[in-house]
Amino acid sequence: MIAVVKQERRVGAKLEEVKTPELGSEDVLVKVKATALCGTDLHIYEWSPWAQNAGIHPPQIMGHEFSGEIAAVGNAVVNLTPGDYVAGETHIPCGKCYQCRNGQQHICGNLKLFGVHTDGCFAEYAKIPAICAVKIPTTIPPEIGAVFEPLGTALRASLAVKVAGKNVAVIGCGPIGLFAIACSRAMGAANIIATDVVNERLQLSKELGADASLNPAKEDVVDAALEMTRGVGVDVFMDASGSVAAIKQGFQYLRKGGEVALIGLPSEPIELNLGPDIIFKEAKIIGIHGREMFSTWTQMENMIDKGLLNLDPIISHRMPLSEFEKAFELIKTGKGCKVILDPSQT
Amino acid sequence: MIAVVKQERRVGAKLEEVKTPELGSEDVLVKVKATALCGTDLHIYEWSPWAQNAGIHPPQIMGHEFSGEIAAVGNAVVNLTPGDYVAGETHIPCGKCYQCRNGQQHICGNLKLFGVHTDGCFAEYAKIPAICAVKIPTTIPPEIGAVFEPLGTALRASLAVKVAGKNVAVIGCGPIGLFAIACSRAMGAANIIATDVVNERLQLSKELGADASLNPAKEDVVDAALEMTRGVGVDVFMDASGSVAAIKQGFQYLRKGGEVALIGLPSEPIELNLGPDIIFKEAKIIGIHGREMFSTWTQMENMIDKGLLNLDPIISHRMPLSEFEKAFELIKTGKGCKVILDPSQT
Amino acid sequence: MIAVVKQERRVGAKLEEVKTPELGSEDVLVKVKATALCGTDLHIYEWSPWAQNAGIHPPQIMGHEFSGEIAAVGNAVVNLTPGDYVAGETHIPCGKCYQCRNGQQHICGNLKLFGVHTDGCFAEYAKIPAICAVKIPTTIPPEIGAVFEPLGTALRASLAVKVAGKNVAVIGCGPIGLFAIACSRAMGAANIIATDVVNERLQLSKELGADASLNPAKEDVVDAALEMTRGVGVDVFMDASGSVAAIKQGFQYLRKGGEVALIGLPSEPIELNLGPDIIFKEAKIIGIHGREMFSTWTQMENMIDKGLLNLDPIISHRMPLSEFEKAFELIKTGKGCKVILDPSQT
Amino acid sequence: MIAVVKQERRVGAKLEEVKTPELGSEDVLVKVKATALCGTDLHIYEWSPWAQNAGIHPPQIMGHEFSGEIAAVGNAVVNLTPGDYVAGETHIPCGKCYQCRNGQQHICGNLKLFGVHTDGCFAEYAKIPAICAVKIPTTIPPEIGAVFEPLGTALRASLAVKVAGKNVAVIGCGPIGLFAIACSRAMGAANIIATDVVNERLQLSKELGADASLNPAKEDVVDAALEMTRGVGVDVFMDASGSVAAIKQGFQYLRKGGEVALIGLPSEPIELNLGPDIIFKEAKIIGIHGREMFSTWTQMENMIDKGLLNLDPIISHRMPLSEFEKAFELIKTGKGCKVILDPSQT
Repeated sequence: MIAVVKQERRVGAKLEEVKTPELGSEDVLVKVKATALCGTDLHIYEWSPWAQNAGIHPPQIMGHEFSGEIAAVGNAVVNLTPGDYVAGETHIPCGKCYQCRNGQQHICGNLKLFGVHTDGCFAEYAKIPAICAVKIPTTIPPEIGAVFEPLGTALRASLAVKVAGKNVAVIGCGPIGLFAIACSRAMGAANIIATDVVNERLQLSKELGADASLNPAKEDVVDAALEMTRGVGVDVFMDASGSVAAIKQGFQYLRKGGEVALIGLPSEPIELNLGPDIIFKEAKIIGIHGREMFSTWTQMENMIDKGLLNLDPIISHRMPLSEFEKAFELIKTGKGCKVILDPSQT
Repeated sequence: MIAVVKQERRVGAKLEEVKTPELGSEDVLVKVKATALCGTDLHIYEWSPWAQNAGIHPPQIMGHEFSGEIAAVGNAVVNLTPGDYVAGETHIPCGKCYQCRNGQQHICGNLKLFGVHTDGCFAEYAKIPAICAVKIPTTIPPEIGAVFEPLGTALRASLAVKVAGKNVAVIGCGPIGLFAIACSRAMGAANIIATDVVNERLQLSKELGADASLNPAKEDVVDAALEMTRGVGVDVFMDASGSVAAIKQGFQYLRKGGEVALIGLPSEPIELNLGPDIIFKEAKIIGIHGREMFSTWTQMENMIDKGLLNLDPIISHRMPLSEFEKAFELIKTGKGCKVILDPSQT
Repeated sequence: MIAVVKQERRVGAKLEEVKTPELGSEDVLVKVKATALCGTDLHIYEWSPWAQNAGIHPPQIMGHEFSGEIAAVGNAVVNLTPGDYVAGETHIPCGKCYQCRNGQQHICGNLKLFGVHTDGCFAEYAKIPAICAVKIPTTIPPEIGAVFEPLGTALRASLAVKVAGKNVAVIGCGPIGLFAIACSRAMGAANIIATDVVNERLQLSKELGADASLNPAKEDVVDAALEMTRGVGVDVFMDASGSVAAIKQGFQYLRKGGEVALIGLPSEPIELNLGPDIIFKEAKIIGIHGREMFSTWTQMENMIDKGLLNLDPIISHRMPLSEFEKAFELIKTGKGCKVILDPSQT
Repeated sequence: MIAVVKQERRVGAKLEEVKTPELGSEDVLVKVKATALCGTDLHIYEWSPWAQNAGIHPPQIMGHEFSGEIAAVGNAVVNLTPGDYVAGETHIPCGKCYQCRNGQQHICGNLKLFGVHTDGCFAEYAKIPAICAVKIPTTIPPEIGAVFEPLGTALRASLAVKVAGKNVAVIGCGPIGLFAIACSRAMGAANIIATDVVNERLQLSKELGADASLNPAKEDVVDAALEMTRGVGVDVFMDASGSVAAIKQGFQYLRKGGEVALIGLPSEPIELNLGPDIIFKEAKIIGIHGREMFSTWTQMENMIDKGLLNLDPIISHRMPLSEFEKAFELIKTGKGCKVILDPSQT
């Protein structure tokens, strides 16, 4: 089969003919219908410092966001059968550790990430543990199924901070931030403030219904947020930027008693003043690493199935898998938002 | 001033000229801009068995849902000034009891109800304790301000059962049930099932976005709810009917692990089978009696201010206060839904 | 091996020589070190109306509470090995249904109960699905391991109503009620009120630290509870009696804003007045059916391991498995509380 | 009356004869029965950089922790009468702001601190707003009533992280840390790990029931915490040290999915690595600034009244108010823990 392979521990990847994966007893083989690019893939492609230390072992098939059809199942698989339509959950739990035994398998103590620690889905077929192949309604198009993984992270954050009736800031308008805006809008958030330094992305945030789309390089976000909230500050903010400066600023316009969901991964340490930033405010902060398995999926399916989430503006490009290099260029330059690759096209 | 007065302990009420109320030090006087009829008012008007035992002392001005402008304030009032635009909170807390001291003043141990245990607001002016006059944005029209009280009950229930991404049933499509549908729709509920025995009300539920509007007298609601949820049952139901039969049925189509908000007041005891209805299901049930003071108000204001709630179909009639008898007739027959009375019209 | 077998659909059971169970690929075989009697077993023994409709298929080995040592494991079992010390979780989840996929496998939509729908553990060896054999620390004696199942139900209820610093009533001083008292005491409950109609059990409640041990047949529990709480009512009550009269009474002395955990299974419907019992009080009620799998187990292990729970008064008798008839007599008459059977003794 | 007065914006304070305070209409006058020293008082006494910027306006009576008897009440005070026994809540809410209107008056947007922004209680009589004088049971001795304020902070943190059945670390064994240990022990925590760099304080932590009392200057706390928890890490930690190094270390031994309560105020910014410290762990962090008004007080009273909290080891010294300089010396050197001053002694 055709696959995008990270061959060596340096920049780049190649489209190659590789063997279709062999299944272990607990695995399934999925015929990939659509797969999507994520910032993590770009890190791996560019072999960034993060990627160099992420436990990746080239040669390895790239990619982790996808949907498709079950083509074959391992001997011990009982919940899935060929023909089932599934999307991929990236978090592979061990099933034995403290977290797996205590209702938190998505943050398993021995967590492996599909497409990072294993071969991925930029290919005609993907092998994945059965537990990570989540059946979704056939009414959902493959390109939407392919973005369930990042969408679920955004939905989880939005559920964690309970956005209904609240003034919400979303920091960072990459795909996950934009998904968080779409979720907040659908879940009854009052004012939504979106921030980013890329104007195209701020434009997308407006299309998704943000009430204020601010560029912190040009505008005083703290002032604007306080003004929109009559001096109180936002009830919650979600960070999807990983920008240390933007997160610090978020704590300045967070109201006393506010809540924070942190999703974006900063590449450097952040300096916080615990007194004013957290303690005097009694801020509640939660780290978000993926989706609860599988209650977040259930709520996501329900919302997508009812057409409650406006995701169209976020999916900016669709192209054959063979054009993956163009896709990486699009997201690297910020010209693309979510790019979908189709392995069946040539 | 003109007021609708319940004069005697029997059916009826009269429009009369009465003295404008004198204020205690903690009271405010509100010039009523709009007032709305509630089922409770009908009980009092008709002097139902409930009303006979509700602690009402005629002669008494009727009515408890209203918005208006502060006309005067008592000596000790510091948070409000004449000209402020307010809506009325019906629950009058004592400020001293266990509940008042523990963050639950809306269910005060010595709770008094405005318009039931005190003179009310079917009048040109209403006297109310300052704590119960809630400032609201001037962008909100008086007739919407007048329904904040019942709307807040519905919002509170919807927040309590966390409707986002869930399959929701709303039992009873009187005003509070319809408000609950509007809130659920705005807060990201997936399928919304509405039930009532009055076709006009089911029609309204459709306008508000219910996915299935069912008449239990004609349709098998349990079957329908199970079918819409692939056999699982609804994630949550809210009862705004007070119908014992309908609530019992609700427990039949509630999924295992589901949640229930009870708002409607049955006039008779309900028989529950705790094993199958609650324990094996691990159902979570919460009684809802009014609004949290005042976090529910804050979230309601935010949502109304952003235009997130579609309340127009629920307000069926507007008329001068002097036509209150026609208004009672409309809600008694189910031909009216929420009827607004205007004391300034003649 | 020797086992207590329910042979026919009528009163009684017999000690018999039966074949050691054969394992499916996902099962384990446990050499039973201690097994305990539960009210459910008595129902089955006596072939009560409940038992007749519980899906029991004689001939069947009785019993569901036990601890022991893994003797053999099925082919597909990876988390357990022979020699592991385990206690039995009674709830057998299907692993596929809505609840199993949404973090609530303990109330699986297709739930089967070990020892009710399957052969049980009143035997030298017990076969159980691997997922239901929970490793516990070897520092915990077998007779304590054997009561983890009912203890976990009580702990779960105590965690659900958050007893710390609260006035707590426990209705019913059978084993689960007594466990709930022990848990409440260990978790910082303030006043604990225990009720039962059997004096021996009230005596046990005192040994476990109840502040008031009341017999509703002789004392006015409502008055006493109000007096102990300065007229406020208890913050929470847990019902482990299944007595319709006692639960109704509980709602009378529950404070406004209080919380309720229902564990005991009434044999008849209960009549509730939703207005005063639940809605005006904004009572929160939760049904408790077993233990969260497996976070309740983790917390229980931690607490037992630290010696925080005083369980000694609850385990009233220990005897060889062959004396099971005497054991049933003890719990039937209320002379015994928790009775432990040892299959290795003769 | 006699009072300890901070006279000038430099080191020191003096015992002086001052006028008994005059009451505003919402104030009460309390005859102080016992008052306690807090680290904040030491900052003010020593005129530390923090104190210089805390909004203090000498000359001012020092002190904020106390209990006593109501001597007189302002005109508008209805909930208290002379003779009532009260303890002091330090947080003075404005009653009008967003937080005060939304159930979070203890973190009022215009919060003033008694004894910092107002005259305090190191005196024979203290003037305080009536809302901040909390009636407590007369069974509680004055010296215990005097430490309700810091104890409540510790209890609130322990409630927030839900310690029952969990492995808990308490960082910093000053009075608040020690109170947190006492609360955790009473509320069913499993292993409690205490850390401090002062051996006398570690000794106190042992008396209160800590399972491991570790000096991070001498021992590897991360290793020890992981070993005590079988490699998993602690379920929760509470910081009462304000030590940047210790908090950073706390995130290292916090388990994935763990929770954190931050109480101690660092004097410098902290550097966190959001990825490993918070996001991958999905840590939940909450800032704690005082007590919920007044639900924390209620639970605290209940627990104290039942004798559930062992506070004796924490109260190290008692002396006349006139010996305040000796008291400051004791807490400055770490030789004293909680020091009680008695204004009635000479």
